[in-house]
Amino acid sequence: MPTHTQQSAVTAPVTVLGLGPMGRALAAAFLAAGVPTTVWNRTPGRDGELVERGALSARTAEEAVSASPLTVVCVVNYDASDAVLHDDDVTRALKGRTVVNLSADTPERARSAASWAAAHGVRYLDGAIMTPTTTIGTPHGVFIHSGEAALYEEHRPALEALGGTHTHLGEDIGRAAAYDVALLDIFWTAMTGYMHALALAKAEGISARELAPFAVGIGAILPEAFEESAVEVDNGTHSGEGNPITSAASTMAHVIHASEGHGIDAGVMRAAEGLVRRVIGEGHGADGPTRITELLGRR
Amino acid sequence: MPTHTQQSAVTAPVTVLGLGPMGRALAAAFLAAGVPTTVWNRTPGRDGELVERGALSARTAEEAVSASPLTVVCVVNYDASDAVLHDDDVTRALKGRTVVNLSADTPERARSAASWAAAHGVRYLDGAIMTPTTTIGTPHGVFIHSGEAALYEEHRPALEALGGTHTHLGEDIGRAAAYDVALLDIFWTAMTGYMHALALAKAEGISARELAPFAVGIGAILPEAFEESAVEVDNGTHSGEGNPITSAASTMAHVIHASEGHGIDAGVMRAAEGLVRRVIGEGHGADGPTRITELLGRR
Ligand SMILES: NC(=O)c1ccc[n+]([C@@H]2O[C@H](COP(=O)([O-])OP(=O)(O)OC[C@H]3O[C@@H](n4cnc5c(N)ncnc54)[C@H](OP(=O)(O)O)[C@@H]3O)[C@@H](O)[C@H]2O)c1
Ligand SMILES: NC(=O)c1ccc[n+]([C@@H]2O[C@H](COP(=O)([O-])OP(=O)(O)OC[C@H]3O[C@@H](n4cnc5c(N)ncnc54)[C@H](OP(=O)(O)O)[C@@H]3O)[C@@H](O)[C@H]2O)c1
Repeated sequence: MPTHTQQSAVTAPVTVLGLGPMGRALAAAFLAAGVPTTVWNRTPGRDGELVERGALSARTAEEAVSASPLTVVCVVNYDASDAVLHDDDVTRALKGRTVVNLSADTPERARSAASWAAAHGVRYLDGAIMTPTTTIGTPHGVFIHSGEAALYEEHRPALEALGGTHTHLGEDIGRAAAYDVALLDIFWTAMTGYMHALALAKAEGISARELAPFAVGIGAILPEAFEESAVEVDNGTHSGEGNPITSAASTMAHVIHASEGHGIDAGVMRAAEGLVRRVIGEGHGADGPTRITELLGRR
Repeated sequence: MPTHTQQSAVTAPVTVLGLGPMGRALAAAFLAAGVPTTVWNRTPGRDGELVERGALSARTAEEAVSASPLTVVCVVNYDASDAVLHDDDVTRALKGRTVVNLSADTPERARSAASWAAAHGVRYLDGAIMTPTTTIGTPHGVFIHSGEAALYEEHRPALEALGGTHTHLGEDIGRAAAYDVALLDIFWTAMTGYMHALALAKAEGISARELAPFAVGIGAILPEAFEESAVEVDNGTHSGEGNPITSAASTMAHVIHASEGHGIDAGVMRAAEGLVRRVIGEGHGADGPTRITELLGRR
């Protein structure tokens, strides 16, 4: 699993399909790194700033992919990337060229995208971006990739022009999407919890700005909790020594009670509490919260 | 909202009621700071190590609270602290003494505990601990307190003997619990998301140890996301410029689809997605995820 952060000189042109917030950030980073960049978006008019910085604006996706040996796709999901790439003219133009799909979707969709590519002579890599748009073109971007190692090596200099850390997770084309979906599970669950906490705090007369410094403190203890829990899960130990799951259950009940007392929906925490109560009901109340992973993963 | 981290010399004795993982950590920190410490726990036999380090072991809660002007209570919740404190002999012994209740519960329960204390001549402060047991007695502990400022100042040296950062959030006795419940909302929602992500990763052939470094990376971007979202929420702007909520909805659908494809319950993410879909359904799809807070907080 080699991780590369070094940036190489790149001259081969790159095409970016999709100019949402992330596609625009990618194109801007390529341009800033001196990479000749052609851009296209389904809805026209999103490339004004990029053209000012030197991007070539293609009128069609076919024209766009024809301009470069490497096309980076970054649209909302694989329904969207399929809608662009499966057009007959685009598919024909891509023959012998490489597509790196940095849109988010499931491992299953990454695998079917690779099958489609193989059937049409398109060279294909799959990837995902794990950090916000503001990190692109900086050392803080985190990119994961999967697919044929030789193909990855060939395009690594172009990808590294985006800055940040690039990790090739293996040749299984679904690997990056598998990491992506698990990591987005964490991110969006946590963000929803925070959105809920802000609503609860507000009902208690606490502004978001007042809660935020303490919320940042909670954010700061998560990495260590994540690392420790990973060991418990891999070892199957699920120690509750420092924090029994009954204590978590009690806390979750407080959150639900306080929220619903203010008329705030607590469906997310109710679902979480349901898992914890099942763990306890099965006789594992003295264990730690990592038992939830075992409960969920049981077939 | 004064925050204090400085540690003063303390000699007045302290009593700790409750010797779960956190109560034991508190008692150990008092002892390490040279504070004469008396301990008691409902179930006997939890104080062996503490007694070796110099703690006095009380046979009853009444005997324990009689030993010190300040009693720190740290049990699972306020049903538990009431069960200990509302015993007639204990209540009588507490008259004129101070109780700091560091157990977690709702603001409502903190307020009724304060009413009970006032009715029985017990001086009362409420607080909460925002960091794991391993941080107690170190600079990394985070404690929040509320209640009468003069009473807090009187006991501040004793509390600061626990190390870490102590913040007095105000005289409203429910304030610390209100912060606590909001912060635990974040912590337990995020941890449940992580437990779920580990189950999903495992089903995809990714071990917890393999996912953990990337999960830590997600943890590392949360503090900034928390701070930025707080500004959006207080200002009511809910900008979706860098990350429209439709993009989050798509991502959440991937998590659900990938999980359920492996037979893994996705109830937590389904509940989160339900909130996001409602925001979009109400015409705010171009906004950012902070719209969730507005949806939840609406009466
Ligand atoms: N924003 C972030 O912070 C961030 C971070 C990490 C990863 N990502 C990932 O990056 C990808 C792109 O995200 P984003 O932030 O740029 O915004 P997004 O809202 O997820 O995607 C918008 C892009 O998708 C295109 N699109 C949607 N449906 C389409 C269709 N049927 N055919 C063609 N194009 C279609 C849009 O074109 P139109 O303009 O024509 O609608 C636009 O270019 C997503 O997979 C996201 O999960 C984003
Ligand atoms: N552990 C952490 O990392 C952590 C971090 C921050 C805050 N906290 C908070 O600290 C408090 C204590 O947590 P903990 O980790 O020590 O474990 P806990 O499992 O939450 O609490 C265990 C303690 O509660 C006592 N207890 C339970 N029911 C009782 C009752 N009816 N009457 C008397 N005592 C009763 C137990 O006594 P027995 O031994 O007799 O059962 C034991 O002393 C909780 O409110 C928790 O949320 C904990």
